[in-house]
Amino acid sequence: MTYPEPFCLTASQAQARFKDGSLTVEEYAKSLLARISLRDSVTNAWAYLDPDLVLKRARELDQLRLEERGPLHGVAIGVKDVIYTEDMPTQFNSPLYENNLPKVDAASVMTLRANGALLIGKTTTTEFAATTVGPSYKGPRTSNPHDPTRTPGGSSAGSGAAVGDFQVPIALGTQTIGSTIRPGSFNGIYAMKPTWNSISREGQKLYSLIFDTLGFYARSVNDLKLLLDVFQVQDDGPEGEFNVEGSKFALLRFPTPEWPEAGPGTIAAMKKGAELLKAHGAEVEEISLPDEFRQIYKYQLQVLAGDGRVAFLPDYVVAKDKLDTLLIEHVDNEDKHTRKDQLRAFDELAAMRPKIDALVDKYAAIIAPSVVDEAPVGHENTGNPAFCGPWTAMHTPVVNIPGFKGENGLPIGLSLVASRYRDQHLLRVSKEVGKIFEEQGGWQRQQL
Amino acid sequence: MTYPEPFCLTASQAQARFKDGSLTVEEYAKSLLARISLRDSVTNAWAYLDPDLVLKRARELDQLRLEERGPLHGVAIGVKDVIYTEDMPTQFNSPLYENNLPKVDAASVMTLRANGALLIGKTTTTEFAATTVGPSYKGPRTSNPHDPTRTPGGSSAGSGAAVGDFQVPIALGTQTIGSTIRPGSFNGIYAMKPTWNSISREGQKLYSLIFDTLGFYARSVNDLKLLLDVFQVQDDGPEGEFNVEGSKFALLRFPTPEWPEAGPGTIAAMKKGAELLKAHGAEVEEISLPDEFRQIYKYQLQVLAGDGRVAFLPDYVVAKDKLDTLLIEHVDNEDKHTRKDQLRAFDELAAMRPKIDALVDKYAAIIAPSVVDEAPVGHENTGNPAFCGPWTAMHTPVVNIPGFKGENGLPIGLSLVASRYRDQHLLRVSKEVGKIFEEQGGWQRQQL
Repeated sequence: MTYPEPFCLTASQAQARFKDGSLTVEEYAKSLLARISLRDSVTNAWAYLDPDLVLKRARELDQLRLEERGPLHGVAIGVKDVIYTEDMPTQFNSPLYENNLPKVDAASVMTLRANGALLIGKTTTTEFAATTVGPSYKGPRTSNPHDPTRTPGGSSAGSGAAVGDFQVPIALGTQTIGSTIRPGSFNGIYAMKPTWNSISREGQKLYSLIFDTLGFYARSVNDLKLLLDVFQVQDDGPEGEFNVEGSKFALLRFPTPEWPEAGPGTIAAMKKGAELLKAHGAEVEEISLPDEFRQIYKYQLQVLAGDGRVAFLPDYVVAKDKLDTLLIEHVDNEDKHTRKDQLRAFDELAAMRPKIDALVDKYAAIIAPSVVDEAPVGHENTGNPAFCGPWTAMHTPVVNIPGFKGENGLPIGLSLVASRYRDQHLLRVSKEVGKIFEEQGGWQRQQL
Repeated sequence: MTYPEPFCLTASQAQARFKDGSLTVEEYAKSLLARISLRDSVTNAWAYLDPDLVLKRARELDQLRLEERGPLHGVAIGVKDVIYTEDMPTQFNSPLYENNLPKVDAASVMTLRANGALLIGKTTTTEFAATTVGPSYKGPRTSNPHDPTRTPGGSSAGSGAAVGDFQVPIALGTQTIGSTIRPGSFNGIYAMKPTWNSISREGQKLYSLIFDTLGFYARSVNDLKLLLDVFQVQDDGPEGEFNVEGSKFALLRFPTPEWPEAGPGTIAAMKKGAELLKAHGAEVEEISLPDEFRQIYKYQLQVLAGDGRVAFLPDYVVAKDKLDTLLIEHVDNEDKHTRKDQLRAFDELAAMRPKIDALVDKYAAIIAPSVVDEAPVGHENTGNPAFCGPWTAMHTPVVNIPGFKGENGLPIGLSLVASRYRDQHLLRVSKEVGKIFEEQGGWQRQQL
């Protein structure tokens, strides 16, 4: 039997091979590093990579006795460069933080390491994960692995591109509006934004306390499940089987005034997704977002304006001239948002959350667009996050399911949404839906 | 004219002397360090103090030309040891973080430094600012400067004690339930918890995203104002005069089932405070907290249980045996809180916030108890935070006004509460009320 190149494996597949002794963590790491070396000039997904450090840690993991190995033993992870790692710089794609190396691990990284993960390096981001200007603008130009003339999305640009390109099986992203889910769709991979605050955000660059969420990328739902489990993101309910047959989904059309029009790729994906689920015995009810939620995105941007004013003040005070214009405008409160409007937006969003939960709980999941369309051409603009924003504001878990394609052959995914703290349920649904969309949606990941 | 010892000055007074050239920052720092040296064996307020570093920075500040000096030029500040400082260890009073020195400044520290502040050292805290066990329990025994057999409160134990003891004019605290306001009352000083999220909490140990708030200690309202201004905590409204005469306050009696009974010291302070305001021409309306808010504290503790589960997981995974029992119970979800209850509590608190704002806005401020009574004897228990919790959960700004005394002669303060983002208004009210309470409340700070 010949094995595929180790870099092609999902994390769960690699773990099976560590267990049966047919692969060491070091061999695996070498394969990933070779893949990166081959592809890095095209994708430019890494803000920091020290192969010697990776191999040293890999050998340390190999030396652990079986009973010392954690549940993430040898699982290779890329870390978005807005999350602290004590042995690698964290530079936020900001000239203010060049070669910045605080000796501290973010809470997420601490948990991953303690469970046996192997950190590969830091992946590129837009400035402070807060602008929509691609990492191309300053620093390396990160490209979509499926078409290097296009953006991989942002702000988690490098994480999305690296996982989409088989350079690493798992990567961490963050999301304040659409920074995890959008690159998930653009790069043809699974992306998960768990329930807000279900995983500690300590040591992750702060933009908005009430929206910022750690996110995950992977090429399989099993890999996402590995992560949810070590972070102890648990639902109330007992775990049960989920079958598409006999289940009921909502297909969500957004009202148009507040959201962009979906492009042809996303419209086709929504239609195809619904057809496929029906063909597999599910009921799919087409719904619109009720009127009471129409202001979600407007309110989210209003809260974010207030939050940005606070989050970027320190850097503004230290070196305003080194900040992106968007961040300067935040601190200067350029749009003259009042506290009254900010509080109203904050409170209205809070009031919507239990209502959204109740709406979502009528279904196995809501199916919603992840993006306006396939990844646009160019690297400076990372695409429109508007379709992702509402779920971030509502704190609900979201998984991007890949499987569809746009008019130019680029991948398009759809979002599955569950109510807050139904993350494990959402993964069970995602696994079954993912099988169908990946097999029959029309877009196939390149076979290596 | 003879000046008082520089260490006796408030920060604003010290700044006036830097300006008129009668005091250098170095001389000032030497005076504070001498005071600390004299008193440290009694109060044990410092977790880290490097006099040489302080003097070096002081000399650097003295070398700045007038036009280079920031608005906090030479303002000496103690930093609670749960807030990152790039040049001093941050140890969280946890054996897991002994000598921990991440090379990074918290957002608050970055802003203070960039404005010219002089950081004196790190002040003691309960473990991760999350337990109610005094710093005595592990590490140095921090005492109340007004009676060393008593607690200075917690978790901001060292910050409260150091400011109360003239070792530093200003210190940073944090509050998740009552960790800033309670020590303010126990140590006879002003304490401010600004509106939640009005100042970046980045780089400050995380316990609860939705409650944690940076707080300030000072011996004058002018000093609090200095800080609010550099952090750009601005109200909507134009700044106006505030006069006690003709203004209207609410004196808030809490319903008893959910809160502890106030002790005789606090009951007397509430009565005296109301009398004093009336004597100065204010109207004081006695109110109870309406029934719809009765569950605030219960909901707060429920949300906190969920938040602690998330916040302490990383340390739990790394070294559970080195964590306080309370934190282990959080992660283990010992009380079996369900997600449903957690979300209900989170949403109910959110729904209360605009209602509390509307209630508070009927008055110049609400007057509420800061603590159950004067500081209790002993060092292991830092006192009951229950009276402070509701305002933390409601995100409102609170200022502890000192001036009263308990049956054993220890200081007692009262809380003034305004609605969210009326921080500057609250300071104007606090200044006028503080003059009255400090002069006529019955407790006088020791004159040195």
